[in-house]
Amino acid sequence: MRMYDVIAKKRDGGILTREEIAFAVNGYVAGDIPDYQMSALLMAIYLRGMTDEETAVLTEVMAHSGDMVDLSAIQGIKVDKHSTGGVGDKTTLVIAPIVAACGVKIAKMSGRGLGHTGGTVDKMEAVPGTRTALTREEFFRQVNEIGISVIGQSGEIAVADKKLYALRDVTATVGCIPLIASSIMSKKLAAGSDAILLDVTMGDGAFMKNLDDAIELARLMVSIGTAHGRKVAALITDMDKPLGHNIGNSLEIAESIAVLKGKGPADLTEVCLQLAANMLVLAGKGTLTECRAMAERTLQDGTAFVKCCRMFAAQGGDVEMVKDPDKLRKATYSYEITARENGYIAKNDVEKIGNASVLLGAGRIRKEDSIDFAAGIVMHKKLGDKVRSGESICTFYADDPALFAPAEEMYRGGLVISDQQPNLPPLVYARVTPEGVQRF
Amino acid sequence: MRMYDVIAKKRDGGILTREEIAFAVNGYVAGDIPDYQMSALLMAIYLRGMTDEETAVLTEVMAHSGDMVDLSAIQGIKVDKHSTGGVGDKTTLVIAPIVAACGVKIAKMSGRGLGHTGGTVDKMEAVPGTRTALTREEFFRQVNEIGISVIGQSGEIAVADKKLYALRDVTATVGCIPLIASSIMSKKLAAGSDAILLDVTMGDGAFMKNLDDAIELARLMVSIGTAHGRKVAALITDMDKPLGHNIGNSLEIAESIAVLKGKGPADLTEVCLQLAANMLVLAGKGTLTECRAMAERTLQDGTAFVKCCRMFAAQGGDVEMVKDPDKLRKATYSYEITARENGYIAKNDVEKIGNASVLLGAGRIRKEDSIDFAAGIVMHKKLGDKVRSGESICTFYADDPALFAPAEEMYRGGLVISDQQPNLPPLVYARVTPEGVQRF
Repeated sequence: MRMYDVIAKKRDGGILTREEIAFAVNGYVAGDIPDYQMSALLMAIYLRGMTDEETAVLTEVMAHSGDMVDLSAIQGIKVDKHSTGGVGDKTTLVIAPIVAACGVKIAKMSGRGLGHTGGTVDKMEAVPGTRTALTREEFFRQVNEIGISVIGQSGEIAVADKKLYALRDVTATVGCIPLIASSIMSKKLAAGSDAILLDVTMGDGAFMKNLDDAIELARLMVSIGTAHGRKVAALITDMDKPLGHNIGNSLEIAESIAVLKGKGPADLTEVCLQLAANMLVLAGKGTLTECRAMAERTLQDGTAFVKCCRMFAAQGGDVEMVKDPDKLRKATYSYEITARENGYIAKNDVEKIGNASVLLGAGRIRKEDSIDFAAGIVMHKKLGDKVRSGESICTFYADDPALFAPAEEMYRGGLVISDQQPNLPPLVYARVTPEGVQRF
Repeated sequence: MRMYDVIAKKRDGGILTREEIAFAVNGYVAGDIPDYQMSALLMAIYLRGMTDEETAVLTEVMAHSGDMVDLSAIQGIKVDKHSTGGVGDKTTLVIAPIVAACGVKIAKMSGRGLGHTGGTVDKMEAVPGTRTALTREEFFRQVNEIGISVIGQSGEIAVADKKLYALRDVTATVGCIPLIASSIMSKKLAAGSDAILLDVTMGDGAFMKNLDDAIELARLMVSIGTAHGRKVAALITDMDKPLGHNIGNSLEIAESIAVLKGKGPADLTEVCLQLAANMLVLAGKGTLTECRAMAERTLQDGTAFVKCCRMFAAQGGDVEMVKDPDKLRKATYSYEITARENGYIAKNDVEKIGNASVLLGAGRIRKEDSIDFAAGIVMHKKLGDKVRSGESICTFYADDPALFAPAEEMYRGGLVISDQQPNLPPLVYARVTPEGVQRF
C-alpha cells in the first residue's frame, strides 16, 4: 500500500477502507509517513469529508495508537464527561461531585487550559496541595474508596491524536466535523469509561458556530461511541455567555463550591444539573426526571459538597480552603471596568473575555507558561444586562497592575453597549441521544 | 502574513492575492514555509481551483524564482515549443530544423526523459560527441550564427517549480490544470523566447484524458503567456498512438532524420508540419497556409536537413552519423513480438509501450539511471492495423536478451487484438489561440 494512493483516493472523494486508514495513521505515528503527505490527506478529508463509518474507524485506530485504559479494577459503572471548550467552564468541578454523590463512579482524566479556555486540572491545583498526577493504582484505589477522582490526562492516551492535532493546528485542518469527532472520541474511548456525556458548546467563539453543525458533531460522536459499546449522549450548550460570574482558577473554584452549597448562580447551577442528570441517566439511575431530582437533592442535602471535599482531601488538597474559599490567596490588585454609556450589554465576546483573563495571568498562551491562580475576572454585568454609565461591568484581579490596561483593551474590544436589549441564547439548545435529537 | 491564513483562505474557496501567492511560493523556496503547509495549500488548490488571474500570478512568481533568461543578445524573433509529454515524441528534432530553415531563431532548452516518456536531450546525445550543456555565450553565439541550438535545461530556471513539482509528485496534487499550466508556463516564460507553441497531448496515458480538459489547459496556458506579452498558441494532439514507428533514442534519431529527408512516416511528418507551421505563424512569417507551404518546402529542398546537420556539428556531434543514421551503434540483440491471433490492434496502451522501452534500457526509472541509446522498439503494427496470427507486431532491441521477457509482458499487457476495427483518433484535435478554439 502507498500513502500516495490513499491521498489520491480521498482527493477524488473515495471512501477509505479500514486498512487504508490504519496504514496512514499508524505509518504517521511510526514516522514512516512524512508530515507533508499526512497534511495533504487531512486537507483532502477536510474538503471531501468522511462517512460515519470512516470516522468510526479513524477514531478506533487513533484510540488504539496509545494506552487503552482498563477501568475494570473499579467496581460499577464509570461515567465520563467531555466539553468541547468554553470560557469560565467550571462545570466538571460541580458535576463530578453531584454524580459521585448519587453513587456513580467518576474516574476522570481532564486537561489543562490553553489559549482563551481554562482547564479543570489547573483549577483544582488552585487549592494548595492538590495532586493531579496520581499513579494508576492510586487513581483506582481512590475511585473505589470514595467514588471520585479527577486527574491530569496521561501523555500515552491516543498518541496519534496528539501528533495529528499538532499538524492540523498549523495546516488549517482543525475545523472539520469528522476530524473533531474522531479526535475527541479517540481520547474518550481510550480513557475507558462505560458511559460518556458530551457537552458540545456552540457560539461565535466555539468551533461549532451554528446549531446544525453542533448537532451534526454531537450525532457523529454519539454514533461512534455507541458503535464501540459505550453509552453516549450529548447536550448542545451555549458558549456566547460564560456560565456564572467568575473567570480564573481560584475564582472559579469559589463559584463551583458556591453551587455545591446550593448558593451558586442560577445559570451555572441549571446547566450543571442538566449535565449531571444526563450522566445519571447514562449510568442507568432512572429517567431524566428522576435523575434531575436526584441531582438536585445532592445540592440540597450537602452530599455533593461533601464528595468534593473528600476528593480534594484524597488528592492532598487543603480542605479548609475548599470549605471556605475566601481563604484562597487573593490577587494583590483589583481594577473596575465601568460602563461608558447607558444601555444594554448587546455583545460581550467570550473569546475576548477569555483572552483578557489570560492577559491578567490566569491562563497560558504557550503550553510552558505558568499560571497565577488568583488572577481573573468577576463579571457583574453579562450579555443582556442593563447598565448605567459609570457602573462597574466587571472587576479584574492581578498581581501586577500593569496588566490591567492591555486586559481592559482586550475586554472592551468585544464589548458593545446598545439601546436595544439583545435576544438571549438559551442555556441548552438540544439533547442528542442514539434515539434522536431533541431541540429545546 | 501567516501561511496558515493563506491555506485557510484557499480551503474556503477564496481568491488569493498576488501578495499571498508570492508569500507562499517565495517562503517555500527560501525554506521558511515547511513542506507540510505547502502540501496542504496544494491540496486545497487542487480541490478548490484557481482563477485565471491567480494562475497567471502563480506562474509569474514561479518564473521569477530562478533565472529569467535574456535572449535579447540573439537577433530576431525566437520561437519555443513545449510538449506536455508523449511516448516516441521526436517532433522537436524535426520541427526545430524546419523552423530554423525558414529563418526563425530556435534557442531551445529541453528536458531529459523520465518514466515512460523520452527527452529530446537524451535523443541528441545518441549521436556521439553531441554536447547539450553549452555555456550561455556558446548558446547565444550558435543561435546567432546558424539560427538553431537545442540544449539541456539549466537547473536555475524556475527554481520554485522544481521544488513544488517534487512535492506535488508525492502528495497526489500533480493532475490539476492550474498547477500544470503554471508549472509549464513558468519555465517557458523564464526561458525567454518571444513566441511559444504548446503541444498539449491528449489520451488515456496523458494527464489530459479528454478534449475538454485538454482545451481548458491549452486555453489557460495561452492566456497566461499572452498576459505576459508572449505570442502563444496550442495544438491538442493525440497521445493514444505513438507518432512514427520508432521508440528509443538512436531509433528516434534515425526516424527524425528520415522525416527531414522527406522519407519519414506520414503521421509523424504531418504532425511536425502542422506544429512547425504554427510556430512560423507565431513568428509572423505569414498565414497558416503560407507557413505550411514554407515548412513543406524545407523538407523537399533539403534545407531543414542541412540545418539539423549544422546544429549537430556546432554542438560537437558526429555529422557522418546524422547523415547516415545506419552508422549509429545497433543493439546486440533483437526480438520479435508476434500476434497470437488474427484481427485488428484494438488497443495498444502508450504508457505500457513507453514502459516496455524503459525496461529494454532506453529510458530511466530514476533520475540517476543511465540510458542505452541503442535499445528500443520498432512498431510494425499500430492501433487500427490488421494483423495475422504469427505476424510480427514489433521488434525489441536490447544489449541483454534477459530484458526481452519482462518488456514483452509489459507490452502485451496493454495490447488487445479484436475482430472489430477500432475508431482511430485524429492526429490533431484542436488549435487554441488567443482568438479562440478551432476544433478539427
